[in-house]
Amino acid sequence: MTVIGLGLMGRALASAFLRAGHPTTVWNRTPAKAGPLLAEGARPAVTVGEALRASPLTIICVTDYQAVYDLFGASDTELDGRTLINLTSGDSAQARDAARWAERRGARYLDGAVMAVPPAIGTAEAVILHSGPRPDFEAHESTLDALGTVTYLGADHGLASLYDVAGLAMMWSVLNGWLQGTALLGTAGVDAVTFAPFARQIAAVVAEWLPGYAEQIDKGSFPAEVSALETDVRAMDHLIEESEAVGVNAELPRLIKAMAGRSIAAGHGGEQYPVLIEEFRTPRD
Amino acid sequence: MTVIGLGLMGRALASAFLRAGHPTTVWNRTPAKAGPLLAEGARPAVTVGEALRASPLTIICVTDYQAVYDLFGASDTELDGRTLINLTSGDSAQARDAARWAERRGARYLDGAVMAVPPAIGTAEAVILHSGPRPDFEAHESTLDALGTVTYLGADHGLASLYDVAGLAMMWSVLNGWLQGTALLGTAGVDAVTFAPFARQIAAVVAEWLPGYAEQIDKGSFPAEVSALETDVRAMDHLIEESEAVGVNAELPRLIKAMAGRSIAAGHGGEQYPVLIEEFRTPRD
Repeated sequence: MTVIGLGLMGRALASAFLRAGHPTTVWNRTPAKAGPLLAEGARPAVTVGEALRASPLTIICVTDYQAVYDLFGASDTELDGRTLINLTSGDSAQARDAARWAERRGARYLDGAVMAVPPAIGTAEAVILHSGPRPDFEAHESTLDALGTVTYLGADHGLASLYDVAGLAMMWSVLNGWLQGTALLGTAGVDAVTFAPFARQIAAVVAEWLPGYAEQIDKGSFPAEVSALETDVRAMDHLIEESEAVGVNAELPRLIKAMAGRSIAAGHGGEQYPVLIEEFRTPRD
Repeated sequence: MTVIGLGLMGRALASAFLRAGHPTTVWNRTPAKAGPLLAEGARPAVTVGEALRASPLTIICVTDYQAVYDLFGASDTELDGRTLINLTSGDSAQARDAARWAERRGARYLDGAVMAVPPAIGTAEAVILHSGPRPDFEAHESTLDALGTVTYLGADHGLASLYDVAGLAMMWSVLNGWLQGTALLGTAGVDAVTFAPFARQIAAVVAEWLPGYAEQIDKGSFPAEVSALETDVRAMDHLIEESEAVGVNAELPRLIKAMAGRSIAAGHGGEQYPVLIEEFRTPRD
Protein backbone atom coordinates (compact mmCIF):
# COMPACT_ATOMS: atom_id res chain seq x y z
CA MET A 1 0.00 0.00 0.00
CA THR A 2 1.30 3.44 -0.92
CA VAL A 3 -0.22 6.71 0.24
CA ILE A 4 0.76 9.89 -1.60
CA GLY A 5 -0.15 13.18 0.03
CA LEU A 6 0.13 13.44 3.80
CA GLY A 7 -2.20 16.24 4.75
CA LEU A 8 -4.59 15.58 7.63
CA MET A 9 -6.62 13.13 5.55
CA GLY A 10 -3.65 11.38 3.91
CA ARG A 11 -2.03 10.81 7.30
CA ALA A 12 -5.30 9.40 8.67
CA LEU A 13 -5.54 7.01 5.69
CA ALA A 14 -1.94 5.80 6.03
CA SER A 15 -2.34 5.38 9.76
CA ALA A 16 -5.49 3.27 9.30
CA PHE A 17 -3.63 0.95 6.88
CA LEU A 18 -0.77 0.60 9.34
CA ARG A 19 -3.12 -0.16 12.24
CA ALA A 20 -4.71 -2.89 10.09
CA GLY A 21 -1.28 -4.41 9.57
CA HIS A 22 -0.75 -3.47 5.92
CA PRO A 23 2.86 -2.62 4.93
CA THR A 24 2.52 1.04 3.88
CA THR A 25 4.84 3.30 1.93
CA VAL A 26 4.29 7.05 2.15
CA TRP A 27 5.40 10.10 0.22
CA ASN A 28 4.76 13.79 0.71
CA ARG A 29 6.12 16.89 -0.98
CA THR A 30 7.25 18.06 2.45
CA PRO A 31 8.89 14.88 3.85
CA ALA A 32 8.69 16.06 7.49
CA LYS A 33 4.94 15.40 7.48
CA ALA A 34 5.70 11.67 7.28
CA GLY A 35 7.44 11.71 10.67
CA PRO A 36 4.70 10.38 12.95
CA LEU A 37 3.78 7.74 10.35
CA LEU A 38 7.35 6.44 10.21
CA ALA A 39 7.15 5.95 13.97
CA GLU A 40 4.01 3.85 13.32
CA GLY A 41 5.95 1.70 10.86
CA ALA A 42 5.45 3.40 7.51
CA ARG A 43 8.25 3.21 4.94
CA PRO A 44 9.30 6.51 3.39
CA ALA A 45 9.79 6.89 -0.36
CA VAL A 46 12.22 9.52 -1.66
CA THR A 47 10.45 10.09 -4.97
CA VAL A 48 6.92 9.63 -6.30
CA GLY A 49 8.32 7.00 -8.68
CA GLU A 50 9.80 5.03 -5.82
CA ALA A 51 6.52 5.31 -3.91
CA LEU A 52 4.58 3.94 -6.90
CA ARG A 53 6.99 1.06 -7.41
CA ALA A 54 6.72 0.05 -3.75
CA SER A 55 3.09 -1.19 -3.96
CA PRO A 56 0.61 -2.41 -6.56
CA LEU A 57 -1.99 0.00 -5.08
CA THR A 58 -1.44 3.72 -4.55
CA ILE A 59 -3.88 6.00 -2.75
CA ILE A 60 -3.62 9.66 -3.77
CA CYS A 61 -4.93 12.40 -1.50
CA VAL A 62 -3.55 15.79 -2.50
CA THR A 63 -4.80 19.38 -2.77
CA ASP A 64 -6.48 19.21 -6.17
CA TYR A 65 -6.41 17.43 -9.53
CA GLN A 66 -3.72 19.75 -10.91
CA ALA A 67 -1.45 18.58 -8.12
CA VAL A 68 -2.07 14.99 -9.25
CA TYR A 69 -0.93 15.82 -12.79
CA ASP A 70 2.04 17.79 -11.49
CA LEU A 71 3.18 14.89 -9.29
CA PHE A 72 2.74 12.11 -11.84
CA GLY A 73 3.65 14.03 -14.95
CA ALA A 74 7.39 13.34 -14.78
CA SER A 75 8.69 10.72 -17.17
CA ASP A 76 10.29 8.66 -14.40
CA THR A 77 6.92 7.91 -12.80
CA GLU A 78 5.99 4.58 -14.32
CA LEU A 79 2.21 4.10 -13.99
CA ASP A 80 1.91 1.07 -16.25
CA GLY A 81 0.29 -1.82 -14.38
CA ARG A 82 -0.25 0.19 -11.20
CA THR A 83 -3.66 0.79 -9.62
CA LEU A 84 -4.38 4.35 -8.51
CA ILE A 85 -7.22 5.35 -6.20
CA ASN A 86 -7.57 9.10 -6.27
CA LEU A 87 -9.33 10.48 -3.19
CA THR A 88 -8.41 14.08 -4.04
CA SER A 89 -11.42 16.46 -3.90
CA GLY A 90 -12.73 17.50 -7.28
CA ASP A 91 -15.74 17.33 -9.52
CA SER A 92 -17.10 14.56 -11.71
CA ALA A 93 -15.60 15.97 -14.92
CA GLN A 94 -12.15 16.12 -13.33
CA ALA A 95 -12.55 12.52 -12.17
CA ARG A 96 -13.49 11.33 -15.67
CA ASP A 97 -10.60 13.28 -17.23
CA ALA A 98 -8.15 11.85 -14.72
CA ALA A 99 -9.40 8.33 -15.47
CA ARG A 100 -8.68 8.82 -19.19
CA TRP A 101 -5.25 10.26 -18.40
CA ALA A 102 -4.37 7.37 -16.08
CA GLU A 103 -5.63 4.78 -18.53
CA ARG A 104 -3.53 6.33 -21.32
CA ARG A 105 -0.55 5.88 -19.01
CA GLY A 106 -1.44 2.19 -18.58
CA ALA A 107 -2.72 2.50 -15.01
CA ARG A 108 -5.90 1.14 -13.48
CA TYR A 109 -7.79 4.05 -11.97
CA LEU A 110 -10.57 4.44 -9.43
CA ASP A 111 -11.88 7.79 -8.31
CA GLY A 112 -13.02 8.12 -4.75
CA ALA A 113 -14.48 10.51 -2.22
CA VAL A 114 -14.12 10.45 1.54
CA MET A 115 -17.36 11.27 3.35
CA ALA A 116 -15.75 11.63 6.74
CA VAL A 117 -13.46 13.83 8.78
CA PRO A 118 -9.91 12.55 9.32
CA PRO A 119 -10.42 11.34 12.93
CA ALA A 120 -13.22 9.01 11.74
CA ILE A 121 -11.00 7.19 9.24
CA GLY A 122 -10.64 3.54 10.20
CA THR A 123 -14.11 3.39 11.79
CA ALA A 124 -17.36 2.19 10.22
CA GLU A 125 -18.61 5.79 10.38
CA ALA A 126 -16.17 6.81 7.61
CA VAL A 127 -17.89 6.23 4.28
CA ILE A 128 -15.50 6.04 1.35
CA LEU A 129 -17.05 6.06 -2.11
CA HIS A 130 -15.39 4.51 -5.16
CA SER A 131 -16.21 4.59 -8.85
CA GLY A 132 -14.49 3.09 -11.88
CA PRO A 133 -14.03 -0.47 -13.17
CA ARG A 134 -15.56 -2.94 -10.73
CA PRO A 135 -12.75 -5.55 -11.00
CA ASP A 136 -10.19 -2.94 -9.97
CA PHE A 137 -12.27 -2.12 -6.90
CA GLU A 138 -12.87 -5.74 -6.00
CA ALA A 139 -9.18 -6.58 -6.32
CA HIS A 140 -8.41 -4.23 -3.42
CA GLU A 141 -11.67 -4.14 -1.49
CA SER A 142 -10.44 -6.24 1.43
CA THR A 143 -7.42 -3.95 1.87
CA LEU A 144 -9.54 -0.80 1.57
CA ASP A 145 -11.83 -2.11 4.31
CA ALA A 146 -9.21 -0.86 6.78
CA LEU A 147 -10.37 2.70 5.99
CA GLY A 148 -14.02 2.40 7.01
CA THR A 149 -17.27 1.66 5.16
CA VAL A 150 -15.99 1.19 1.65
CA THR A 151 -18.59 1.49 -1.10
CA TYR A 152 -18.59 0.83 -4.84
CA LEU A 153 -20.95 3.00 -6.90
CA GLY A 154 -20.45 2.07 -10.55
CA ALA A 155 -18.21 2.19 -13.58
CA ASP A 156 -18.63 5.91 -14.34
CA HIS A 157 -15.60 7.54 -12.70
CA GLY A 158 -17.67 10.68 -11.98
CA LEU A 159 -20.03 8.91 -9.58
CA ALA A 160 -17.95 9.18 -6.41
CA SER A 161 -17.74 12.94 -6.75
CA LEU A 162 -21.43 13.27 -7.60
CA TYR A 163 -22.57 11.11 -4.68
CA ASP A 164 -20.25 13.06 -2.43
CA VAL A 165 -21.72 16.47 -3.23
CA ALA A 166 -25.24 15.02 -3.35
CA GLY A 167 -24.73 13.65 0.14
CA LEU A 168 -23.38 16.96 1.35
CA ALA A 169 -26.39 18.78 -0.12
CA MET A 170 -28.57 16.41 1.89
CA MET A 171 -26.51 16.95 5.04
CA TRP A 172 -26.55 20.74 4.91
CA SER A 173 -30.24 20.77 4.00
CA VAL A 174 -31.15 18.73 7.06
CA LEU A 175 -29.00 20.98 9.24
CA ASN A 176 -30.42 24.17 7.75
CA GLY A 177 -34.03 23.01 8.07
CA TRP A 178 -33.29 22.26 11.71
CA LEU A 179 -31.58 25.64 12.24
CA GLN A 180 -34.59 27.44 10.70
CA GLY A 181 -36.89 25.63 13.13
CA THR A 182 -34.53 26.19 16.06
CA ALA A 183 -34.44 29.93 15.31
CA LEU A 184 -38.25 30.09 15.02
CA LEU A 185 -38.82 28.25 18.31
CA GLY A 186 -36.07 30.22 20.00
CA THR A 187 -38.18 33.37 19.64
CA ALA A 188 -40.71 31.73 22.00
CA GLY A 189 -37.99 30.78 24.47
CA VAL A 190 -37.85 27.12 23.42
CA ASP A 191 -34.34 25.71 23.89
CA ALA A 192 -32.58 24.06 20.97
CA VAL A 193 -32.38 20.81 22.98
CA THR A 194 -36.14 20.85 23.45
CA PHE A 195 -36.81 21.22 19.73
CA ALA A 196 -34.08 18.81 18.54
CA PRO A 197 -35.92 15.51 19.21
CA PHE A 198 -38.97 16.83 17.36
CA ALA A 199 -36.79 17.85 14.38
CA ARG A 200 -34.95 14.54 14.48
CA GLN A 201 -38.22 12.64 14.36
CA ILE A 202 -39.48 14.63 11.36
CA ALA A 203 -36.22 14.13 9.47
CA ALA A 204 -36.42 10.40 10.16
CA VAL A 205 -40.05 10.18 9.03
CA VAL A 206 -39.47 12.22 5.85
CA ALA A 207 -36.36 10.15 5.04
CA GLU A 208 -38.63 7.10 4.88
CA TRP A 209 -40.76 8.75 2.17
CA LEU A 210 -37.81 9.06 -0.23
CA PRO A 211 -37.86 5.60 -1.84
CA GLY A 212 -41.56 5.97 -2.71
CA TYR A 213 -41.14 9.53 -3.92
CA ALA A 214 -38.16 8.37 -5.99
CA GLU A 215 -40.45 5.94 -7.83
CA GLN A 216 -42.64 8.88 -8.83
CA ILE A 217 -39.58 10.64 -10.25
CA ASP A 218 -38.41 7.62 -12.23
CA LYS A 219 -41.93 7.14 -13.62
CA GLY A 220 -42.29 10.87 -14.30
CA SER A 221 -45.76 10.66 -12.75
CA PHE A 222 -46.67 12.62 -9.63
CA PRO A 223 -50.26 11.89 -8.54
CA ALA A 224 -51.19 13.89 -5.42
CA GLU A 225 -51.66 10.81 -3.21
CA VAL A 226 -50.89 12.69 -0.02
CA SER A 227 -50.94 16.40 -0.81
CA ALA A 228 -50.96 18.66 -3.86
CA LEU A 229 -48.33 21.35 -4.37
CA GLU A 230 -50.98 24.09 -4.45
CA THR A 231 -51.98 23.05 -0.90
CA ASP A 232 -48.35 22.86 0.27
CA VAL A 233 -47.66 26.36 -0.99
CA ARG A 234 -50.17 27.90 1.42
CA ALA A 235 -48.23 26.36 4.30
CA MET A 236 -45.01 27.72 2.74
CA ASP A 237 -46.58 31.19 2.91
CA HIS A 238 -47.27 30.57 6.61
CA LEU A 239 -43.64 29.61 7.12
CA ILE A 240 -42.42 32.79 5.44
CA GLU A 241 -44.93 35.02 7.28
CA GLU A 242 -44.12 33.45 10.63
CA SER A 243 -40.37 33.76 10.06
CA GLU A 244 -40.75 37.42 9.13
CA ALA A 245 -43.22 38.13 11.95
CA VAL A 246 -40.98 36.73 14.70
CA GLY A 247 -37.91 38.34 13.14
CA VAL A 248 -35.77 35.43 12.01
CA ASN A 249 -34.10 34.85 8.64
CA ALA A 250 -36.59 33.93 5.91
CA GLU A 251 -34.24 33.23 2.99
CA LEU A 252 -34.59 29.45 3.16
CA PRO A 253 -38.42 29.64 3.45
CA ARG A 254 -38.49 32.05 0.50
CA LEU A 255 -36.38 29.72 -1.65
CA ILE A 256 -38.64 26.77 -0.74
CA LYS A 257 -41.65 28.82 -1.81
CA ALA A 258 -40.01 30.24 -4.94
CA MET A 259 -39.22 26.79 -6.33
CA ALA A 260 -42.71 25.48 -5.56
CA GLY A 261 -44.28 28.63 -6.98
CA ARG A 262 -42.44 28.17 -10.28
CA SER A 263 -43.57 24.57 -10.47
CA ILE A 264 -47.17 25.65 -9.92
CA ALA A 265 -46.75 28.35 -12.58
CA ALA A 266 -45.54 25.59 -14.92
CA GLY A 267 -48.87 23.82 -14.37
CA HIS A 268 -47.95 21.31 -11.63
CA GLY A 269 -50.11 22.67 -8.79
CA GLY A 270 -52.27 19.55 -8.70
CA GLU A 271 -49.28 17.20 -8.46
CA GLN A 272 -47.22 15.97 -5.54
CA TYR A 273 -44.02 17.46 -4.12
CA PRO A 274 -41.47 15.33 -6.04
CA VAL A 275 -42.64 17.02 -9.26
CA LEU A 276 -40.24 19.76 -8.09
CA ILE A 277 -37.44 17.61 -9.53
CA GLU A 278 -38.10 19.52 -12.76
CA GLU A 279 -37.14 22.77 -10.98
CA PHE A 280 -34.03 21.20 -9.46
CA ARG A 281 -33.00 20.00 -12.91
CA THR A 282 -33.30 23.50 -14.37
CA PRO A 283 -30.39 25.93 -13.92
CA ARG A 284 -31.23 29.50 -12.89
CA ASP A 285 -29.07 32.48 -12.09
CA MET B 1 -67.65 16.69 21.20
CA THR B 2 -68.45 19.48 18.76
CA VAL B 3 -66.65 20.09 15.49
CA ILE B 4 -67.11 23.46 13.80
CA GLY B 5 -65.93 23.77 10.21
CA LEU B 6 -66.42 20.78 7.92
CA GLY B 7 -63.85 21.23 5.20
CA LEU B 8 -61.75 18.19 4.31
CA MET B 9 -59.88 18.35 7.62
CA GLY B 10 -62.90 19.13 9.78
CA ARG B 11 -64.82 16.20 8.31
CA ALA B 12 -61.83 13.91 8.94
CA LEU B 13 -61.68 15.06 12.59
CA ALA B 14 -65.41 14.56 13.18
CA SER B 15 -65.30 11.18 11.51
CA ALA B 16 -62.40 10.03 13.73
CA PHE B 17 -64.37 11.03 16.85
CA LEU B 18 -67.41 9.13 15.62
CA ARG B 19 -65.36 6.03 14.82
CA ALA B 20 -63.97 6.15 18.37
CA GLY B 21 -67.53 6.16 19.70
CA HIS B 22 -67.69 9.78 20.89
CA PRO B 23 -71.09 11.50 20.49
CA THR B 24 -70.27 14.31 18.04
CA THR B 25 -72.15 17.44 17.08
CA VAL B 26 -71.17 19.21 13.87
CA TRP B 27 -71.80 22.61 12.33
CA ASN B 28 -70.78 24.11 9.01
CA ARG B 29 -71.65 27.36 7.28
CA THR B 30 -72.86 25.26 4.34
CA PRO B 31 -74.94 22.58 6.12
CA ALA B 32 -74.84 20.15 3.16
CA LYS B 33 -71.21 19.34 3.95
CA ALA B 34 -72.38 17.59 7.12
CA GLY B 35 -74.33 15.00 5.11
CA PRO B 36 -71.91 12.05 5.13
CA LEU B 37 -71.13 12.67 8.82
CA LEU B 38 -74.80 12.53 9.76
CA ALA B 39 -74.90 9.11 8.10
CA GLU B 40 -72.00 8.13 10.42
CA GLY B 41 -74.03 9.24 13.43
CA ALA B 42 -73.11 12.91 13.89
CA ARG B 43 -75.73 15.29 15.27
CA PRO B 44 -76.26 18.48 13.30
CA ALA B 45 -76.48 21.87 15.03
CA VAL B 46 -78.47 24.66 13.39
CA THR B 47 -76.45 27.52 14.86
CA VAL B 48 -72.94 27.95 16.20
CA GLY B 49 -74.47 28.70 19.60
CA GLU B 50 -76.35 25.42 19.58
CA ALA B 51 -73.18 23.58 18.51
CA LEU B 52 -71.26 25.10 21.41
CA ARG B 53 -73.95 24.25 23.96
CA ALA B 54 -74.03 20.64 22.79
CA SER B 55 -70.57 19.71 24.18
CA PRO B 56 -68.08 20.92 26.78
CA LEU B 57 -65.32 20.69 24.12
CA THR B 58 -65.47 22.32 20.69
CA ILE B 59 -62.88 21.77 17.95
CA ILE B 60 -62.66 24.62 15.44
CA CYS B 61 -61.19 24.06 11.99
CA VAL B 62 -62.08 26.88 9.64
CA THR B 63 -60.40 28.89 6.87
CA ASP B 64 -58.53 31.44 8.98
CA TYR B 65 -58.60 33.28 12.30
CA GLN B 66 -60.89 36.01 10.95
CA ALA B 67 -63.47 33.30 10.25
CA VAL B 68 -63.20 32.26 13.91
CA TYR B 69 -63.99 35.78 15.09
CA ASP B 70 -66.81 36.12 12.54
CA LEU B 71 -68.41 32.87 13.68
CA PHE B 72 -68.13 33.44 17.42
CA GLY B 73 -68.60 37.17 17.47
CA ALA B 74 -72.40 37.10 17.72
CA SER B 75 -73.83 37.82 21.13
CA ASP B 76 -75.84 34.62 21.25
CA THR B 77 -72.71 32.45 21.20
CA GLU B 78 -72.09 31.80 24.86
CA LEU B 79 -68.43 30.81 25.32
CA ASP B 80 -68.35 31.01 29.09
CA GLY B 81 -67.20 27.71 30.58
CA ARG B 82 -66.62 26.09 27.19
CA THR B 83 -63.29 24.69 26.04
CA LEU B 84 -62.23 25.61 22.51
CA ILE B 85 -59.44 23.89 20.60
CA ASN B 86 -58.65 25.93 17.54
CA LEU B 87 -56.94 23.90 14.80
CA THR B 88 -57.36 26.65 12.21
CA SER B 89 -54.11 27.46 10.34
CA GLY B 90 -52.47 30.69 11.43
CA ASP B 91 -49.37 32.12 12.97
CA SER B 92 -48.20 32.28 16.57
CA ALA B 93 -49.31 35.89 17.07
CA GLN B 94 -52.82 35.06 15.85
CA ALA B 95 -52.93 32.11 18.23
CA ARG B 96 -51.91 34.27 21.20
CA ASP B 97 -54.45 36.97 20.25
CA ALA B 98 -57.21 34.38 19.91
CA ALA B 99 -56.33 32.97 23.34
CA ARG B 100 -56.73 36.41 24.93
CA TRP B 101 -60.02 36.93 23.07
CA ALA B 102 -61.39 33.55 24.16
CA GLU B 103 -60.29 34.05 27.75
CA ARG B 104 -62.03 37.45 27.84
CA ARG B 105 -65.17 35.62 26.76
CA GLY B 106 -64.77 33.18 29.66
CA ALA B 107 -63.67 30.23 27.52
CA ARG B 108 -60.79 27.85 28.03
CA TYR B 109 -58.65 27.93 24.90
CA LEU B 110 -56.02 25.69 23.34
CA ASP B 111 -54.41 26.41 20.02
CA GLY B 112 -53.47 23.49 17.86
CA ALA B 113 -51.90 22.49 14.58
CA VAL B 114 -52.51 19.36 12.54
CA MET B 115 -49.32 17.91 11.07
CA ALA B 116 -51.09 15.47 8.80
CA VAL B 117 -53.24 15.23 5.71
CA PRO B 118 -56.95 14.51 6.25
CA PRO B 119 -56.82 10.78 5.31
CA ALA B 120 -54.23 10.19 8.08
CA ILE B 121 -56.49 11.56 10.84
CA GLY B 122 -57.34 8.82 13.33
CA THR B 123 -54.02 7.01 12.79
CA ALA B 124 -50.82 7.29 14.86
CA GLU B 125 -49.17 8.96 11.85
CA ALA B 126 -51.30 12.09 12.37
CA VAL B 127 -49.45 14.35 14.80
CA ILE B 128 -51.66 16.98 16.40
CA LEU B 129 -49.90 19.69 18.38
CA HIS B 130 -51.52 21.60 21.25
CA SER B 131 -50.46 24.61 23.25
CA GLY B 132 -52.14 26.53 26.06
CA PRO B 133 -52.94 25.74 29.71
CA ARG B 134 -51.87 22.20 30.52
CA PRO B 135 -54.95 21.36 32.66
CA ASP B 136 -57.25 22.20 29.75
CA PHE B 137 -55.29 19.84 27.53
CA GLU B 138 -55.18 17.06 30.10
CA ALA B 139 -58.92 17.31 30.74
CA HIS B 140 -59.59 16.26 27.13
CA GLU B 141 -56.48 14.31 26.21
CA SER B 142 -58.14 10.88 26.28
CA THR B 143 -60.88 12.11 23.94
CA LEU B 144 -58.38 13.80 21.61
CA ASP B 145 -56.44 10.54 21.34
CA ALA B 146 -59.03 9.47 18.77
CA LEU B 147 -57.42 11.91 16.32
CA GLY B 148 -53.90 10.47 16.24
CA THR B 149 -50.65 11.23 18.07
CA VAL B 150 -51.77 14.05 20.32
CA THR B 151 -48.97 16.20 21.74
CA TYR B 152 -48.82 18.98 24.34
CA LEU B 153 -46.08 21.58 23.80
CA GLY B 154 -46.45 24.16 26.56
CA ALA B 155 -48.47 27.02 27.98
CA ASP B 156 -47.56 29.61 25.32
CA HIS B 157 -50.48 29.49 22.87
CA GLY B 158 -48.10 30.34 20.00
CA LEU B 159 -46.12 27.11 20.30
CA ALA B 160 -48.35 24.85 18.19
CA SER B 161 -48.10 27.20 15.23
CA LEU B 162 -44.34 27.65 15.67
CA TYR B 163 -43.66 23.91 15.94
CA ASP B 164 -45.88 23.36 12.92
CA VAL B 165 -43.96 25.69 10.62
CA ALA B 166 -40.63 24.58 12.11
CA GLY B 167 -41.53 20.99 11.30
CA LEU B 168 -42.55 21.96 7.79
CA ALA B 169 -39.24 23.80 7.28
CA MET B 170 -37.51 20.58 8.29
CA MET B 171 -39.69 18.50 5.98
CA TRP B 172 -39.18 20.66 2.90
CA SER B 173 -35.47 20.98 3.61
CA VAL B 174 -35.01 17.20 3.69
CA LEU B 175 -37.01 16.87 0.47
CA ASN B 176 -35.12 19.67 -1.27
CA GLY B 177 -31.70 18.33 -0.25
CA TRP B 178 -32.76 14.98 -1.68
CA LEU B 179 -34.08 16.58 -4.89
CA GLN B 180 -30.78 18.46 -5.33
CA GLY B 181 -28.89 15.19 -5.03
CA THR B 182 -31.34 13.34 -7.25
CA ALA B 183 -30.93 15.99 -9.95
CA LEU B 184 -27.12 15.85 -9.67
CA LEU B 185 -26.99 12.05 -9.92
CA GLY B 186 -29.60 12.06 -12.67
CA THR B 187 -27.10 13.79 -14.97
CA ALA B 188 -24.94 10.64 -14.72
CA GLY B 189 -27.91 8.39 -15.47
CA VAL B 190 -28.42 7.30 -11.85
CA ASP B 191 -32.11 6.57 -11.17
CA ALA B 192 -33.86 8.32 -8.30
CA VAL B 193 -34.60 4.93 -6.72
CA THR B 194 -30.88 4.10 -6.76
CA PHE B 195 -29.94 7.33 -4.97
CA ALA B 196 -32.86 7.34 -2.50
CA PRO B 197 -31.48 4.77 0.00
CA PHE B 198 -28.17 6.67 0.12
CA ALA B 199 -30.01 9.95 0.76
CA ARG B 200 -32.25 8.30 3.36
CA GLN B 201 -29.22 6.99 5.21
CA ILE B 202 -27.55 10.40 5.28
CA ALA B 203 -30.71 12.10 6.52
CA ALA B 204 -31.01 9.50 9.27
CA VAL B 205 -27.37 9.89 10.31
CA VAL B 206 -27.49 13.69 10.32
CA ALA B 207 -30.77 13.64 12.28
CA GLU B 208 -28.88 11.84 15.06
CA TRP B 209 -26.40 14.73 15.31
CA LEU B 210 -29.12 17.25 16.17
CA PRO B 211 -29.37 16.72 19.94
CA GLY B 212 -25.61 17.19 20.35
CA TYR B 213 -25.52 20.17 18.02
CA ALA B 214 -28.48 21.63 19.94
CA GLU B 215 -26.39 21.57 23.12
CA GLN B 216 -23.79 23.73 21.37
CA ILE B 217 -26.51 26.23 20.48
CA ASP B 218 -27.90 26.39 24.00
CA LYS B 219 -24.40 26.85 25.40
CA GLY B 220 -23.54 29.40 22.69
CA SER B 221 -20.23 27.57 22.24
CA PHE B 222 -19.29 25.92 18.96
CA PRO B 223 -15.91 24.18 19.20
CA ALA B 224 -14.96 22.55 15.88
CA GLU B 225 -15.01 19.00 17.26
CA VAL B 226 -15.75 17.46 13.89
CA SER B 227 -15.18 20.12 11.24
CA ALA B 228 -14.69 23.87 11.04
CA LEU B 229 -16.94 26.06 8.91
CA GLU B 230 -13.96 27.28 6.85
CA THR B 231 -13.34 23.66 5.83
CA ASP B 232 -17.03 23.03 5.10
CA VAL B 233 -17.20 26.05 2.84
CA ARG B 234 -14.70 24.57 0.40
CA ALA B 235 -16.98 21.57 -0.04
CA MET B 236 -19.90 23.99 -0.52
CA ASP B 237 -17.94 25.53 -3.39
CA HIS B 238 -17.57 22.04 -4.86
CA LEU B 239 -21.32 21.53 -4.59
CA ILE B 240 -22.03 24.80 -6.40
CA GLU B 241 -19.41 24.17 -9.08
CA GLU B 242 -20.60 20.62 -9.69
CA SER B 243 -24.25 21.72 -9.88
CA GLU B 244 -23.36 24.41 -12.38
CA ALA B 245 -21.02 22.16 -14.37
CA VAL B 246 -23.58 19.39 -14.87
CA GLY B 247 -26.32 21.93 -15.54
CA VAL B 248 -28.73 21.55 -12.63
CA ASN B 249 -30.23 24.24 -10.41
CA ALA B 250 -27.70 25.72 -7.97
CA GLU B 251 -29.93 28.06 -5.94
CA LEU B 252 -30.04 25.84 -2.87
CA PRO B 253 -26.24 25.23 -2.93
CA ARG B 254 -25.69 28.99 -3.31
CA LEU B 255 -27.93 29.76 -0.33
CA ILE B 256 -26.11 27.15 1.78
CA LYS B 257 -22.81 28.78 0.86
CA ALA B 258 -24.06 32.35 1.29
CA MET B 259 -25.16 31.74 4.87
CA ALA B 260 -21.92 29.96 5.77
CA GLY B 261 -19.89 32.66 4.02
CA ARG B 262 -21.55 35.38 6.11
CA SER B 263 -20.84 33.46 9.29
CA ILE B 264 -17.19 33.14 8.31
CA ALA B 265 -17.11 36.87 7.49
CA ALA B 266 -18.48 37.46 10.99
CA GLY B 267 -15.44 35.65 12.39
CA HIS B 268 -16.84 32.14 12.91
CA GLY B 269 -14.72 30.23 10.36
CA GLY B 270 -12.97 28.22 13.05
CA GLU B 271 -16.22 27.12 14.68
CA GLN B 272 -18.61 24.26 13.96
CA TYR B 273 -21.69 24.28 11.73
CA PRO B 274 -24.35 25.03 14.40
CA VAL B 275 -22.78 28.49 14.84
CA LEU B 276 -24.89 29.30 11.76
CA ILE B 277 -27.83 29.66 14.16
CA GLU B 278 -26.73 33.30 14.38
CA GLU B 279 -27.41 33.70 10.64
CA PHE B 280 -30.78 31.95 10.91
CA ARG B 281 -31.71 34.30 13.74
CA THR B 282 -30.90 37.38 11.65
CA PRO B 283 -33.52 38.68 9.20
CA ARG B 284 -32.31 39.66 5.69
CA ASP B 285 -34.15 40.86 2.63
